[in-house]
Amino acid sequence: MTNDERRLAALLDVIDALGPLDAASMAEATATLDGLTKPPGSLGVLESLVTQLAGISGTPRPTFPRRAIVVAAADHGVVRRGVSAYPASVTGQMVANFLAGGAAINVLAAAVDAEVTVIDVGVASPIPASATMGGGPVDGRSATLIRAPVRSGTDDMTVRAAMSRTDALRAIAVGLDVVESLAGLGVDLIAVGEMGIGNTTAASAIVSALTGLPPERVTGRGTGIDDPTHARKLETISRALDRHRPDPADPIGVLAAVGGLEIAALVGVLLGAVAARRPVVLDGFITGAAALIAVGLAPDAGPRLIAGHRSSEPGHAIVLERLGGRPLLELDLRLGEGTGAAMAIGLIDAAVTLRDGMATFGSAGVSGPVERVRP
Amino acid sequence: MTNDERRLAALLDVIDALGPLDAASMAEATATLDGLTKPPGSLGVLESLVTQLAGISGTPRPTFPRRAIVVAAADHGVVRRGVSAYPASVTGQMVANFLAGGAAINVLAAAVDAEVTVIDVGVASPIPASATMGGGPVDGRSATLIRAPVRSGTDDMTVRAAMSRTDALRAIAVGLDVVESLAGLGVDLIAVGEMGIGNTTAASAIVSALTGLPPERVTGRGTGIDDPTHARKLETISRALDRHRPDPADPIGVLAAVGGLEIAALVGVLLGAVAARRPVVLDGFITGAAALIAVGLAPDAGPRLIAGHRSSEPGHAIVLERLGGRPLLELDLRLGEGTGAAMAIGLIDAAVTLRDGMATFGSAGVSGPVERVRP
Repeated sequence: MTNDERRLAALLDVIDALGPLDAASMAEATATLDGLTKPPGSLGVLESLVTQLAGISGTPRPTFPRRAIVVAAADHGVVRRGVSAYPASVTGQMVANFLAGGAAINVLAAAVDAEVTVIDVGVASPIPASATMGGGPVDGRSATLIRAPVRSGTDDMTVRAAMSRTDALRAIAVGLDVVESLAGLGVDLIAVGEMGIGNTTAASAIVSALTGLPPERVTGRGTGIDDPTHARKLETISRALDRHRPDPADPIGVLAAVGGLEIAALVGVLLGAVAARRPVVLDGFITGAAALIAVGLAPDAGPRLIAGHRSSEPGHAIVLERLGGRPLLELDLRLGEGTGAAMAIGLIDAAVTLRDGMATFGSAGVSGPVERVRP
Repeated sequence: MTNDERRLAALLDVIDALGPLDAASMAEATATLDGLTKPPGSLGVLESLVTQLAGISGTPRPTFPRRAIVVAAADHGVVRRGVSAYPASVTGQMVANFLAGGAAINVLAAAVDAEVTVIDVGVASPIPASATMGGGPVDGRSATLIRAPVRSGTDDMTVRAAMSRTDALRAIAVGLDVVESLAGLGVDLIAVGEMGIGNTTAASAIVSALTGLPPERVTGRGTGIDDPTHARKLETISRALDRHRPDPADPIGVLAAVGGLEIAALVGVLLGAVAARRPVVLDGFITGAAALIAVGLAPDAGPRLIAGHRSSEPGHAIVLERLGGRPLLELDLRLGEGTGAAMAIGLIDAAVTLRDGMATFGSAGVSGPVERVRP
């Protein structure tokens, strides 16, 4: 057993020991909600969210003043099969854009007062140097870069495994390192995002392998590919799955065969956050594929993941159904980066602020339902 | 013709003269969006929203620094039929709660930096005096009260018309007054909400009358009524519609027969905002019923109304389908007050901030799609 394997096994034990969400904290949260000046349950999903957050945190009124969005970035060897509308060089260019504060995730993170941490876990093309000079957020819009490349992108999954099992475990450990460091810094809430040209191909292959559904059901248009590219993408995924026949009972094996380095790092981020009892907000289809792998390794992680949104990728609805979470937003986003997760943080804030800011029936002198006031 | 009738007719002429949304501003907004560092269209509904806002405002990059939430409140004579879980006195008590800053809408309005204006257009029970002493927002959480009661609640619609045609027109004029005054104060964006025990009964009757659908299709549980109360609510609506047989081609007649004073005031707010080219954000089922009446009077108002959310009331989905707008949020809310609309303002802010805050492909040195970079 390698160090990375031992570390993952220990982490899975920690999550297993957590068991189900904390029922006492959830009951107390529900009682708080029912005392507020509104009909019981009338805030819908926001009320379930308040209860879920209490259950995850193990305290009835958790607050989340410090929040981080972790964006894992890496390249994909399979891009040479012509599966994307964009050249692979865009991965590094967009990382530079994150660091300069010009991407959608920078704008949306600033709106919810979240810091953005970008992990280079295997970007193949150079990240323009000017962007990385600062080393950290300057104006509250830029991002911190953590350079932890496991390798320079994956291999072409139609020819050989995307990466070795050792590399997959290493990338998971990178994600763990980052989330442990953020938790140590006092971060209360973690959202995830990703950047990697070609990564909807990897995510579709993972979801097909784990669910047993044919690639046609779980493969969409990614950044917006045309019909011939979509046909190539489908054929590429089928060929890779035929070659490796990954065992759905072995999530690490699936990750190594057809996954991505950023997806592996996200698995580490998700598991590390769950073990630290921090709520995690998922973004789109690629983070959903990482979540399926995380839950395959640690079933108790499931209720601790919050579905930030449902994207327009057809496979995402299937992933969310398997995860059992209802998405907070449905806006036909298909950008990734953590954009949907960042906006979902806004709804988490709304839910928590309502819990703590509303008057109670007693304090406001508002009557309850008729049955209650006229016994 | 009364003054109120003349005023409404003039307003409808103004809206008619607006015609469709401004195509040039919309095209310019789309071009702006396509230059940002993201695949075209990948921000989904947020992109349509940016375009729609441009079309409504008649300028390619409208901003909305000052926003108001108008909450119309009134009582309903039909409550004596036992159609609600709450006593009618809760309407006035909740208005007091709005003024004191303790209601859900106060909390959510503060989160999006919106001011709350409450119109008493016919609250039957006294509003506790302490709440009305301040006269305006004190700590940024309380609300301004405008006292403009047309009458003390409506009549029981199963016995006679809820109100006279004159009263309906008067209540519409009250809404117009308020929105004209807000627009004069420089408010750029208007959201609507309501408070009125019994008003889902009125809204269901209106929607049934306007759509021709049976009450069973459009009548839900309101604040959370039990089966016998739901049966009474259905029977009450059927009886009222049988008595008045309101003509769907005469929206004011429908409003007078089975509507509510707060719903009439909201019709005025919606039409006034549309005429002033201010985007209006709708809330739940009751504001949706007001929107159906507004669009019945002025079809060109339709594309200028933004569906803030879809509630769990079964009739709301039907209303939104008729209005043709896709709701920004689907959170199973059923509280009213403008709560869903307030949260939708957060998404409007996200959309506008992305439009103005993201880097362009050129400025960030990011490559476009393969076809573009490799001609």
